[in-house]
Amino acid sequence: MTNYSAPIRDMKFAMQELAGMEEVIRLPGYEEVSNELVDQVLEGAGTFAAEVWGPLNVPGDTEGLKWHEDGSVTTPKGFIEAYGKFVESGWNGLRFDPEYGGQGLPKLVDTAVMEMWNASNMAFSMAPLLTQGAIEAVFLRGSDEQKQRFLHKMVSGEWTGTMNLTEPQAGSDLGLIRTKAVPEGEHFRIHGQKIFISFGEHDLTENIVHLVLARTPTAPEGVRGISLFVVPKFLVNDDGSLGARNDVRCVSIEHKMGIHASPTAVLAFGDGPGAIGYLIGEENRGLEYMFIMMNEARFGVGVQGLGVAERAYQQALANAKERVQGKDATAPKGPSVPIIRHPDVRRMLMSMKSRVEAMRALAYVVAAMFDQAHRAGDEAARSAAHAGVDLLIPILKGWCTETGIEVASTGIQVHGGMGFIEETGAAQHLRDARITTIYEGTTGIQANDLIGRKVLRDGGRSMQALLAQIDGVCAQLEAGDDAQLHAIGARLREGSKSLADSMRWILATGGQDLNAVLAGAVPFLHLCGVVCGGWQMARAALAAQRKLAADSGDADFYRAKIATARFFADQDLSRARGLAEATMHAGASTMALGEDQF
Amino acid sequence: MTNYSAPIRDMKFAMQELAGMEEVIRLPGYEEVSNELVDQVLEGAGTFAAEVWGPLNVPGDTEGLKWHEDGSVTTPKGFIEAYGKFVESGWNGLRFDPEYGGQGLPKLVDTAVMEMWNASNMAFSMAPLLTQGAIEAVFLRGSDEQKQRFLHKMVSGEWTGTMNLTEPQAGSDLGLIRTKAVPEGEHFRIHGQKIFISFGEHDLTENIVHLVLARTPTAPEGVRGISLFVVPKFLVNDDGSLGARNDVRCVSIEHKMGIHASPTAVLAFGDGPGAIGYLIGEENRGLEYMFIMMNEARFGVGVQGLGVAERAYQQALANAKERVQGKDATAPKGPSVPIIRHPDVRRMLMSMKSRVEAMRALAYVVAAMFDQAHRAGDEAARSAAHAGVDLLIPILKGWCTETGIEVASTGIQVHGGMGFIEETGAAQHLRDARITTIYEGTTGIQANDLIGRKVLRDGGRSMQALLAQIDGVCAQLEAGDDAQLHAIGARLREGSKSLADSMRWILATGGQDLNAVLAGAVPFLHLCGVVCGGWQMARAALAAQRKLAADSGDADFYRAKIATARFFADQDLSRARGLAEATMHAGASTMALGEDQF
Repeated sequence: MTNYSAPIRDMKFAMQELAGMEEVIRLPGYEEVSNELVDQVLEGAGTFAAEVWGPLNVPGDTEGLKWHEDGSVTTPKGFIEAYGKFVESGWNGLRFDPEYGGQGLPKLVDTAVMEMWNASNMAFSMAPLLTQGAIEAVFLRGSDEQKQRFLHKMVSGEWTGTMNLTEPQAGSDLGLIRTKAVPEGEHFRIHGQKIFISFGEHDLTENIVHLVLARTPTAPEGVRGISLFVVPKFLVNDDGSLGARNDVRCVSIEHKMGIHASPTAVLAFGDGPGAIGYLIGEENRGLEYMFIMMNEARFGVGVQGLGVAERAYQQALANAKERVQGKDATAPKGPSVPIIRHPDVRRMLMSMKSRVEAMRALAYVVAAMFDQAHRAGDEAARSAAHAGVDLLIPILKGWCTETGIEVASTGIQVHGGMGFIEETGAAQHLRDARITTIYEGTTGIQANDLIGRKVLRDGGRSMQALLAQIDGVCAQLEAGDDAQLHAIGARLREGSKSLADSMRWILATGGQDLNAVLAGAVPFLHLCGVVCGGWQMARAALAAQRKLAADSGDADFYRAKIATARFFADQDLSRARGLAEATMHAGASTMALGEDQF
Repeated sequence: MTNYSAPIRDMKFAMQELAGMEEVIRLPGYEEVSNELVDQVLEGAGTFAAEVWGPLNVPGDTEGLKWHEDGSVTTPKGFIEAYGKFVESGWNGLRFDPEYGGQGLPKLVDTAVMEMWNASNMAFSMAPLLTQGAIEAVFLRGSDEQKQRFLHKMVSGEWTGTMNLTEPQAGSDLGLIRTKAVPEGEHFRIHGQKIFISFGEHDLTENIVHLVLARTPTAPEGVRGISLFVVPKFLVNDDGSLGARNDVRCVSIEHKMGIHASPTAVLAFGDGPGAIGYLIGEENRGLEYMFIMMNEARFGVGVQGLGVAERAYQQALANAKERVQGKDATAPKGPSVPIIRHPDVRRMLMSMKSRVEAMRALAYVVAAMFDQAHRAGDEAARSAAHAGVDLLIPILKGWCTETGIEVASTGIQVHGGMGFIEETGAAQHLRDARITTIYEGTTGIQANDLIGRKVLRDGGRSMQALLAQIDGVCAQLEAGDDAQLHAIGARLREGSKSLADSMRWILATGGQDLNAVLAGAVPFLHLCGVVCGGWQMARAALAAQRKLAADSGDADFYRAKIATARFFADQDLSRARGLAEATMHAGASTMALGEDQF
């Protein structure tokens, strides 16, 4: 296999031309951030990803993890050293508050760096992803005392964090959680079993800070009776040193299709006297707190889809340039050629490249919206950005992960027979990517969230605002006399119209036939994904054309942006009408069969 | 995981109502075949698949194969016994000439049985699949002496067969083959290395009959200088007993993403004095002979896509009925319900079910065409059926395998987090299915074959004939006053029109801009697939409606057929226009980038 190389040029294009980096670094609180600093961060992270995490990706997959009878877990060879360097170099705290040792960089910059960790080594990237979720929880809802006790070491990465939601009977439906939390003085005693806990046990750090959903004895049933607790593997003394081992134990780890180097633990809390846990915020508001963090976590998984797709693309591209097979179809008497010359291989590479660029653009635009939502000077701007984030998160999570799987699968296909051989490295990307449409809420859950909370609840207002932005881009594409931009504009216009039609149908139908609307939810999410991706690709084409018109150099790069946007428009955006049909007509047959007719 | 249960009712519906079983069993040569006999065969094979191969599917995947220093390969526990029973029960020779011990059953019946082997245990099914290909080669082009020497034991399955095409530098491009065949009296000495040889070495049988492509010393370069040889692992004496070990050795087996119980061998021919091989047919016509068999082999892989999809569907359905999670969206205060009640889970199941039924119908219809092509009384009927087979094979192979992967992936998704855990069994289906779009010609190769040999070469005549049949079905759907059939008819009409438009564009463009046409080849293949699938589902709906009108019982079964056809029309056929756009506009951007712009 090939090693990873961070596509910094493309990343900077998306950050600067599409995500509004200039505005982001001028936001209050980012006074120390300059373009030069961002460049240094990207270069440094790119080098670190290429040299430290990238080379461990295949060995980590092959060797996997070892669980021991004493409940400990051994990570693959090299992971302890690599993680140590990661902490030492300060990569974990990039976007966190300097008060706790973070570097206070914009989420936009952090997102580009997260893409690199995911692309170079998705299994490893689960450690910082989960840690960051746990940091958010403590930071946003923890007491000052809890923050002081836990955050410094979590922000540095010296301790990792976990999110303990799922139980065997409680997956997508957290209302079924049974883990108990019994008050005992200042703390609680936690008893219960949690499953699917990523990095729930490992040997990378001396402590692990578990965030755990559980019920207190007086809690009401269902989702309104869930509280959030911080349960460290080792208790933490007042001076910050480690105290006693807490009563939480890893009883097994899962044997998974992919991300073999990411331990997925079954954790038993309270097999003995009960694990000591500290309530975060108020009792019975745990699920609400989880939902605050959920946007960040879902965003992070969307970036995984992007990262693994970029990695699969690099691998396939290298193979297509090297592998000599078959003649040029237009010169059948000529020599055998590298397979990149064959139109269908080229189509696959363009498909991978255009989708990666569309996902990246959308992810970075949403990252910049997070920054605006948190930092913008005036309330209206913050609130508009917040609404944009809320609307786009399920689309980003659902579409980037579904697309990441497709791109990884296309990567195998480019390799032909060698793609199916594990040593080639292409298959791992599909095996790794396959989890991303499931965890942090399946694609179905994202689609229900999109339709229920993001479209029906506000009567389509946020979506209307998005469509207005998209239509503005259409108008720009149609305004000039560039045939490429016109062609892209026609597809985007058709996509926008398909989306508007579907939204109107959802609004009209949701009240009368909720099942029909929910049956079309995933096609609708895909529709939103291709239209949003096409929107960003169209913006990229416009930006590239401006650069070309201004003769600002590197014409090949900008011309490629336009051709890639055109490809996305013809190959992916062209699906929009069909997806709208699938959305609006799903109700006619989806629920038609009785359960015994299956 | 659940075990496999053969869907005999659905199979018989497709055989009788769609594939014209009555006409097939009246063909010359099938005088012994009755509906009762076919029923017995299906029941017997269903039981064998469920009881013998099904239970070995997961253990075979988990345990995998062992290669030993002496070049031998050990199959997973239980495979030797199971294969022994398979041979003993006469399953291998179902469709072959009774002269060599076969049972002379129609390919239509054989196809339903092959679906069962693939669904119950795809890795095992590679053994009979490859053996049957080798039987065809010897049967069609071997000398009488070769037939007598090899066919009896191959038809019985006592010996398996292999197809040795690929070399490290020669995959899709067989013109690059370097393996040498040097004449020595009555036989040749073969020297060279072959890779990706399925069941190239194993411990199931006492002998293995390799069919090998190689070049004689006087052969011209490229594809016109390739000859076909039969190279048994053990030489066969005149009395049929085994003679000396031939100079062919398994030097390694591949570590693959899936089909772990199917040994994929690297074979070294002639490390010593040269492997003894016997020329099949004439020198330098080996590739032509391979292409005769190719239709059968590609058909067989298409049926693998169908089989693994059926298996994934059964697994997902069982999970969806058992797993309780979440409330009914229309009764949020009610109890938690099995996930099959959730519209999005239902959508996934309907998607799996409708695609499986569409693939099955198309596969069985093509199987019946094979029977007609070989057996029909008059020349015109044979020739029409032959043209139909030629046109539909790349569509069937390409579309059923791509769809099989999608269905297997959906099966994981239905399971949620458990789908990613290997012990659940859902992930294996995706890992197994992933090879099917690659071997026996990638989807890109199928699409090029479809466009080049099946559309451009005959000026679209075969495709026109197909479209006329489809339009006839549209007319039937539109004729009555059934709203469901009208809705299906409208989608099929749009699909047919999209296909006709694309075909006209291909015919108009192929001469001027071959690369543009080839860039759109795979979208065109997908378009053909959804339209052909929709055509068969529409025929199923019409047949079901006739049954309902005749009040012939089991109304639930027939009503489900209509609803399932409607689902396929709205969810899959609705993609047709977008695929036509993708086909006709691929040339605008696919080849636009220079290789260094990637």
